[in-house]
Amino acid sequence: MAFPDASQMLETFDNPAPERDYEILHTAHEFTSLCPVTGQPDFATLRFRYVADKTCVELKSLKLYLQAFRNEGVFYEALINRLLGDLVGVLQPRSMEIVGEFSVRGGMSSIITARYPDSN
Amino acid sequence: MAFPDASQMLETFDNPAPERDYEILHTAHEFTSLCPVTGQPDFATLRFRYVADKTCVELKSLKLYLQAFRNEGVFYEALINRLLGDLVGVLQPRSMEIVGEFSVRGGMSSIITARYPDSN
Amino acid sequence: MAFPDASQMLETFDNPAPERDYEILHTAHEFTSLCPVTGQPDFATLRFRYVADKTCVELKSLKLYLQAFRNEGVFYEALINRLLGDLVGVLQPRSMEIVGEFSVRGGMSSIITARYPDSN
Amino acid sequence: MAFPDASQMLETFDNPAPERDYEILHTAHEFTSLCPVTGQPDFATLRFRYVADKTCVELKSLKLYLQAFRNEGVFYEALINRLLGDLVGVLQPRSMEIVGEFSVRGGMSSIITARYPDSN
Amino acid sequence: MAFPDASQMLETFDNPAPERDYEILHTAHEFTSLCPVTGQPDFATLRFRYVADKTCVELKSLKLYLQAFRNEGVFYEALINRLLGDLVGVLQPRSMEIVGEFSVRGGMSSIITARYPDSN
Amino acid sequence: MAFPDASQMLETFDNPAPERDYEILHTAHEFTSLCPVTGQPDFATLRFRYVADKTCVELKSLKLYLQAFRNEGVFYEALINRLLGDLVGVLQPRSMEIVGEFSVRGGMSSIITARYPDSN
Amino acid sequence: MAFPDASQMLETFDNPAPERDYEILHTAHEFTSLCPVTGQPDFATLRFRYVADKTCVELKSLKLYLQAFRNEGVFYEALINRLLGDLVGVLQPRSMEIVGEFSVRGGMSSIITARYPDSN
Amino acid sequence: MAFPDASQMLETFDNPAPERDYEILHTAHEFTSLCPVTGQPDFATLRFRYVADKTCVELKSLKLYLQAFRNEGVFYEALINRLLGDLVGVLQPRSMEIVGEFSVRGGMSSIITARYPDSN
Amino acid sequence: MAFPDASQMLETFDNPAPERDYEILHTAHEFTSLCPVTGQPDFATLRFRYVADKTCVELKSLKLYLQAFRNEGVFYEALINRLLGDLVGVLQPRSMEIVGEFSVRGGMSSIITARYPDSN
Amino acid sequence: MAFPDASQMLETFDNPAPERDYEILHTAHEFTSLCPVTGQPDFATLRFRYVADKTCVELKSLKLYLQAFRNEGVFYEALINRLLGDLVGVLQPRSMEIVGEFSVRGGMSSIITARYPDSN
Repeated sequence: MAFPDASQMLETFDNPAPERDYEILHTAHEFTSLCPVTGQPDFATLRFRYVADKTCVELKSLKLYLQAFRNEGVFYEALINRLLGDLVGVLQPRSMEIVGEFSVRGGMSSIITARYPDSN
Repeated sequence: MAFPDASQMLETFDNPAPERDYEILHTAHEFTSLCPVTGQPDFATLRFRYVADKTCVELKSLKLYLQAFRNEGVFYEALINRLLGDLVGVLQPRSMEIVGEFSVRGGMSSIITARYPDSN
Repeated sequence: MAFPDASQMLETFDNPAPERDYEILHTAHEFTSLCPVTGQPDFATLRFRYVADKTCVELKSLKLYLQAFRNEGVFYEALINRLLGDLVGVLQPRSMEIVGEFSVRGGMSSIITARYPDSN
Repeated sequence: MAFPDASQMLETFDNPAPERDYEILHTAHEFTSLCPVTGQPDFATLRFRYVADKTCVELKSLKLYLQAFRNEGVFYEALINRLLGDLVGVLQPRSMEIVGEFSVRGGMSSIITARYPDSN
Repeated sequence: MAFPDASQMLETFDNPAPERDYEILHTAHEFTSLCPVTGQPDFATLRFRYVADKTCVELKSLKLYLQAFRNEGVFYEALINRLLGDLVGVLQPRSMEIVGEFSVRGGMSSIITARYPDSN
Repeated sequence: MAFPDASQMLETFDNPAPERDYEILHTAHEFTSLCPVTGQPDFATLRFRYVADKTCVELKSLKLYLQAFRNEGVFYEALINRLLGDLVGVLQPRSMEIVGEFSVRGGMSSIITARYPDSN
Repeated sequence: MAFPDASQMLETFDNPAPERDYEILHTAHEFTSLCPVTGQPDFATLRFRYVADKTCVELKSLKLYLQAFRNEGVFYEALINRLLGDLVGVLQPRSMEIVGEFSVRGGMSSIITARYPDSN
Repeated sequence: MAFPDASQMLETFDNPAPERDYEILHTAHEFTSLCPVTGQPDFATLRFRYVADKTCVELKSLKLYLQAFRNEGVFYEALINRLLGDLVGVLQPRSMEIVGEFSVRGGMSSIITARYPDSN
Repeated sequence: MAFPDASQMLETFDNPAPERDYEILHTAHEFTSLCPVTGQPDFATLRFRYVADKTCVELKSLKLYLQAFRNEGVFYEALINRLLGDLVGVLQPRSMEIVGEFSVRGGMSSIITARYPDSN
Repeated sequence: MAFPDASQMLETFDNPAPERDYEILHTAHEFTSLCPVTGQPDFATLRFRYVADKTCVELKSLKLYLQAFRNEGVFYEALINRLLGDLVGVLQPRSMEIVGEFSVRGGMSSIITARYPDSN
């Protein structure tokens, strides 16, 4: 497994309103990766909600970064925590929440939600 | 009535991000058991929401554990509390909520919700 | 008007998990009574949400108790408060909320919500 | 513009459970008035949510009172505040919220919400 | 890029109930502007929620002001912050929230939310 | 079982456009009767679609006629055929279809459809 | 009852493609008139589907013509046949269908459909 | 595999309107059987649409007959054809259609439809 | 008004299966043009359904062609017939249907449907 | 581009009811391939509706065959015709229809439908 390199792939632009704590939510409706056990494809909707500090993520680079998981095997729980680590590392946001809604497998669906800073 | 043995059936894996309080929600759309009075089948959607500590529940073993109730008779209220006891025992989560949404019987539907630790 | 006698009609069973404050919600989708002024039928969905203490209400007896209002005339506001009084009297729950959603009459629909203990 | 006289039109009945703070919500799905500028008809769904003190509003009189606006010209913001003043004056409720959801005009829809006592 | 001049285009009228903190929500379902990079059209639903102080925004002037962005290139994040600045400048509201829900581009949709005063 | 007497209860008015074969559809959303075996209430939505000849059915009399089944026991299949016979007898329509959509009993719902003249 | 004069109110424009049998459907979502018996307001969605011959109906004049029924009393069946007569008279279309979907009264809703030429 | 014996389990009653070709549709929302290969549970909604000749199927016996498949292994295609054979054998209907809508397995759902007499 | 030149803008590719009459449906969810009378923006969903003969329309060129109407004034009826003429001219399809669903203006929405060859 | 070899990958089983023309519909909700021009991923729901003759397609082999397109570049129109050719070749069905519903790209979605035998 060779995860995409977020620091290489994710591009940013200057936050146009750093004086304000406003919320940005990007929803990727077509995420797909592979199950690391069976090799079968997984499908998910991913939601990225954050309050930017100095930089915002450029939308097209986020799309390409997510597409780079297409043929990688990764567990649900590990994926969401990996994405959170990657995006927090690149963007240094004031706060961020990532939600992954995974489609039905064997009659069961899953939703994983991780937040930065850890506020549970 | 011989309930499935959770400690035997449920498998776990190491929490990939124990440093963070993130939320896992698995929804089983196809649960069925029997009414202990009439022997008629009951149908429910079950939701398992938890914050893992050291271990996460392996999804396929959760499915098989739930299927083991297929021919057991159990009341709604007892089932949800039993499931909560079983999963808390095996996973030792930081917190957990289980919701059972039971389909219509005699023009009435039921939803039972139990939480650990008890926060009402 | 002769309202059903709740203490006679409602049956209970021992709460299987009294050590925990878990929530029970029964929804009756097919309630009907009469308008006390016009004698015309009224239709409603009723929701009973409670935290049991020593006893839970037996579902079939709740259905029969509600059916006993079929040919009784009662105002919306009085009905919901009467139901709350009856169920609190029989179950002695830790808390209870009853919601009645009444269908459209003259282009207007109504929802009445009462809680025990009174927490507004 | 001659607004309907609420003190004449609205009828009340004794609150059947004044010892409790329960909530009443009446939704009028078919409100219509006129735009005071263009004379064109406006359409709205109106929601009246309140906790009664000594009296409740009689539903049919509320319907007739609302119908009396059919050929009156009134701005959205003025209407909702007028309705709140009228109903608070007649009912003297413990609290009340009125919501008006106005249908699309020029690609824009509007929702106005006023509360008594003023709690924003 | 020549943004519309809000102080010229937005008209106001006196708040009919300044003694009360009531909420006004206008939703523009048909906003369109251009992507500043590709020149391709963007489409959004915009929501303006505010508590007026001395003045309310006149609805038709708000529509025309929004239409003036039709052939302007602007990024999502910059647009919502610009709109908030413009409307707060003209209306001096007690509080305001603007939400932009942008339609799918490359399998991703976006929602931007900014508030005055800054309460995050 | 004493079914309502349709010839007494149903009122008619002159078809305002007998020169044309236009279609009338009345939908009764709140029909209820009793199960002749168990005495339990049944609930249904009934649809009456017809092309009038000389007379149309008066809507309020249709409502009262249907309410007269409230405490009568009748099987689904017999009910719909009885209604068709009654309405055809009173209205002598050019054609008529009656559909009964009965709510869930024991996990099963039913729809019965009968037509005049018999065109299957 | 003084129905609006269609020949005065309805304006037309030349069919831009008379060489083709294409279909036009206008849906008026906010029709309201009065019940001729009780004087209570009725509400409906009206659909006008037609194949134009020499002329098309101008949309704003259709709206104003329909608004002219606002304070007129008219039965459902008579209204739809009247509208069909009026529009066929003015437009002389190749074919036309008018559908009126009337909102719930006493638990019953109605849909009336008339066509020109009469093809049942 | 020991399929339920339809001739033993299905009960019938006399068609109350054999002079008419009316349609009966029963929908079983909670069917479950087993996959004959994996032993995993399958779930389906089954629809039985028929025109009765001399007899109708009794609804409760149909429910019990379907429940008898709960622990039997059977392929989708074989099940629907088996059900059609069984019901045609017992009811001798004028016509019948059975539809099975099977829930998602491996990202794929299936619908099987068989008719008597064979009219494709 | 200067309509886009379809023969310049629309690109085609060879039909990959000309031996078969299969159906292609492209739906443009974000069409916008101007009202030729008021200059106000119009919004529509456009559906292009056709059976290709020798060539298929290239999707991106169709998008750009439709965007070229953004600042043109055109009536609904004229637009749909113009689009049909343009696409039939370029593609020479075996058959084609174009549907335009225009959003609400003054409480009325419109749908225009034209077909080639003319089969009404 | 190296398309999967259907004759190798698709497995079949004997039609359990060849004496009857019944319909089988399999819906693959999670199809993904690549755009042959841009290399960007495409997503679709695919529907396979057929009347079997001697053999039926085995569901798991159909899933694996479809997954084999995951990293292949193919146009919408070519894909659906290719799938139809492959499945007709392997199954020799009495009839078959394949529908591909492709998700939004640049504000446009597409549906392609092909049938065997060609019946347009």
